Amino acid sequence: MNAPSDTPQAVRWQRAQALVGQGVAAIDTPSLVIDLDAMERNLNHMAAYARTHGLRLRPHAKMHKSAEIARMQMARGAVGVCVQKTDEALALAAAGVNDIYISNEVIAFPKLQRLAEAVRDLPTRFGIAVDSAAGVLRLASALVDAQVSGEARIDVFVEIDVGQGRCGVPPGEPAVDLARLIAEHPVLRFAGLQAYHGGAQHRRDPGERAQAIAEAAWAAALTRERLQAAGFEVPLITGAGTGTFALETASHVWGELQVGSYLFMDADYARNESAPQAPVFEHALFVKAQVISRAAHHAVCDAGHKSHAVDSGLPAVWSPPGLSFANGGDEHGLLHASPAGSPLPSLGDTVWLVPGHCDPTVNLHDYLVGVRGGLVTGEIERLIRIDARGAVG
Amino acid sequence: MNAPSDTPQAVRWQRAQALVGQGVAAIDTPSLVIDLDAMERNLNHMAAYARTHGLRLRPHAKMHKSAEIARMQMARGAVGVCVQKTDEALALAAAGVNDIYISNEVIAFPKLQRLAEAVRDLPTRFGIAVDSAAGVLRLASALVDAQVSGEARIDVFVEIDVGQGRCGVPPGEPAVDLARLIAEHPVLRFAGLQAYHGGAQHRRDPGERAQAIAEAAWAAALTRERLQAAGFEVPLITGAGTGTFALETASHVWGELQVGSYLFMDADYARNESAPQAPVFEHALFVKAQVISRAAHHAVCDAGHKSHAVDSGLPAVWSPPGLSFANGGDEHGLLHASPAGSPLPSLGDTVWLVPGHCDPTVNLHDYLVGVRGGLVTGEIERLIRIDARGAVG
Repeated sequence: MNAPSDTPQAVRWQRAQALVGQGVAAIDTPSLVIDLDAMERNLNHMAAYARTHGLRLRPHAKMHKSAEIARMQMARGAVGVCVQKTDEALALAAAGVNDIYISNEVIAFPKLQRLAEAVRDLPTRFGIAVDSAAGVLRLASALVDAQVSGEARIDVFVEIDVGQGRCGVPPGEPAVDLARLIAEHPVLRFAGLQAYHGGAQHRRDPGERAQAIAEAAWAAALTRERLQAAGFEVPLITGAGTGTFALETASHVWGELQVGSYLFMDADYARNESAPQAPVFEHALFVKAQVISRAAHHAVCDAGHKSHAVDSGLPAVWSPPGLSFANGGDEHGLLHASPAGSPLPSLGDTVWLVPGHCDPTVNLHDYLVGVRGGLVTGEIERLIRIDARGAVG
Repeated sequence: MNAPSDTPQAVRWQRAQALVGQGVAAIDTPSLVIDLDAMERNLNHMAAYARTHGLRLRPHAKMHKSAEIARMQMARGAVGVCVQKTDEALALAAAGVNDIYISNEVIAFPKLQRLAEAVRDLPTRFGIAVDSAAGVLRLASALVDAQVSGEARIDVFVEIDVGQGRCGVPPGEPAVDLARLIAEHPVLRFAGLQAYHGGAQHRRDPGERAQAIAEAAWAAALTRERLQAAGFEVPLITGAGTGTFALETASHVWGELQVGSYLFMDADYARNESAPQAPVFEHALFVKAQVISRAAHHAVCDAGHKSHAVDSGLPAVWSPPGLSFANGGDEHGLLHASPAGSPLPSLGDTVWLVPGHCDPTVNLHDYLVGVRGGLVTGEIERLIRIDARGAVG
């Protein structure tokens, strides 16, 4: 899919596209660069893990927002992808992804109407999470209004709050009530439980992560029992993230993993102390930056908050060694010698950063520059469109 | 200018464009909404201020990234706009803005080449900042390579570090050295000094801001004296921001104001204690969000880090009253009663947020929804394209 020709974004895309086949040095700064070799090792690693453990893999595409990467994941066995937003789902469906689950609540009528039309018109299988009667009723109503006919045309997961304190009904009976309501609408299929503990992903101590997921497993299993006692089959419990998926796996409660960040890894996940049972993933996402100013005791690079997200901390400097990154505002990064006495880079030098948090960093860019053969001597193999960039609706 | 039709962004733009003329309720969430009445009062206020004080006004377009808003500023007397990035300059120039100053250092040959071609081919007058001999020599070389003929084809400002500790040469002789180098290249015009103290903008205490700008004024005036002593005319000293411009004005050292945030104001600037001499600007930029989940003691809205920047703190809740906003991750915001006991909003309710920092918030969105008549009963008057969104290069 080519970008249109009359927007500044398209101009930048075409300029970058023209560099395919050239060396890493040709990449403009700041750019978001993927080490394709490392990313593919991460992809293979997680695919093998899910296969070995007999689990469905449904990676979270909120992180990469790219149909091309979704297809790479599905080619390795993923059953589909998750997204958080209706417009992410529609962007990826329009780009050909054929199994998409919105692991989040949607309440607005216009969004549900767009989704219903996509259910009606596209070959993609959709799923969605609910945590309220209004969510179920509005969804069913939108499907009827769009004249979606037939049975079980969309998978509906009841979200339970397994400890994060964000969305989801409390475990137990409230989920049974929603399953009953779903069952009243044949166009909906009760597909199971959404049970994700986002807060557990970034707890540094493996023991704390294990404790949080043990409690989440208990809450999910209890809710499943209540549903079964009320006569409901529970086809699937879906959840887990890159920080905890080995724990969900070991619990035997979850049947599907929603991991996302394993693909790129970021500086924040790298700060987690690793648990013995977890496989190790590599940093595959980098910001290439350039030194644009040099003072006596610091250098300034051209990457700031508009190049990388800072919600989970500042980027780490990947290379050259001996540098720390400090906040320089929206368009600048300050580089200091660390430890003191390390050489500072010169004007024009390249600096590679590892973003603090990959998801909102990807959302700042229009494309990813895929490099084969490493960041030093590699070549630009392809550009990957971030199809759902800015799809917040 | 219409967006192209075959990208998800364009689909979203067209969907929103179709709502022009409808009420505020029709705006999808989360969206970035401008109160046009408030923005125009801010525009008029700053234009009158500059006129009254006999100062040139060159608002910073890094904040709004929009040619349409640049034209509104210039229609009220602004001499042009500033940007921080080459690709911001090119995006706005392509959209018809005819006077653009890159108030930042550019070192990469490909960027300077793009800029030189724009100088050669477009009717826009460009300026740029330098803080190194390499910056001057590379710029001159790029212009020669692009066969830019004639004299003084681009304005070159020497940036001095007036206290921020980021870019810029030290005040005094180093600026004279760069001015000498600029003078060796007739295609360049030495236009004066870039003297901006970004760090002073957000100091809460007016006394601290006054102290910082007093020191910056001293450094800028000293550098001007040295330049004059060396035989250089110093046509202009340019700088200042929304947090301090009354101080730069009072110093009589600066001839041009680069204010940006006055246009929208954000929650962080609102936390500054106001100085008696500063005019007061209104919040004009809001995120419209919707409650998508309700628990016993909190509500969840659909706006997170992908809808608003968090580098300068979380958004403030504008309405309904009695709510505080807590971090809910990339796609969610947690709403708590504040003070305790205030009523929580219901599922589907609208929540209006004031972003913590307007610049990187705008950079997350493709367009601004301009509302006339207020956020309660107003109508969608127009959509404003964020032409340079993502233009980090």
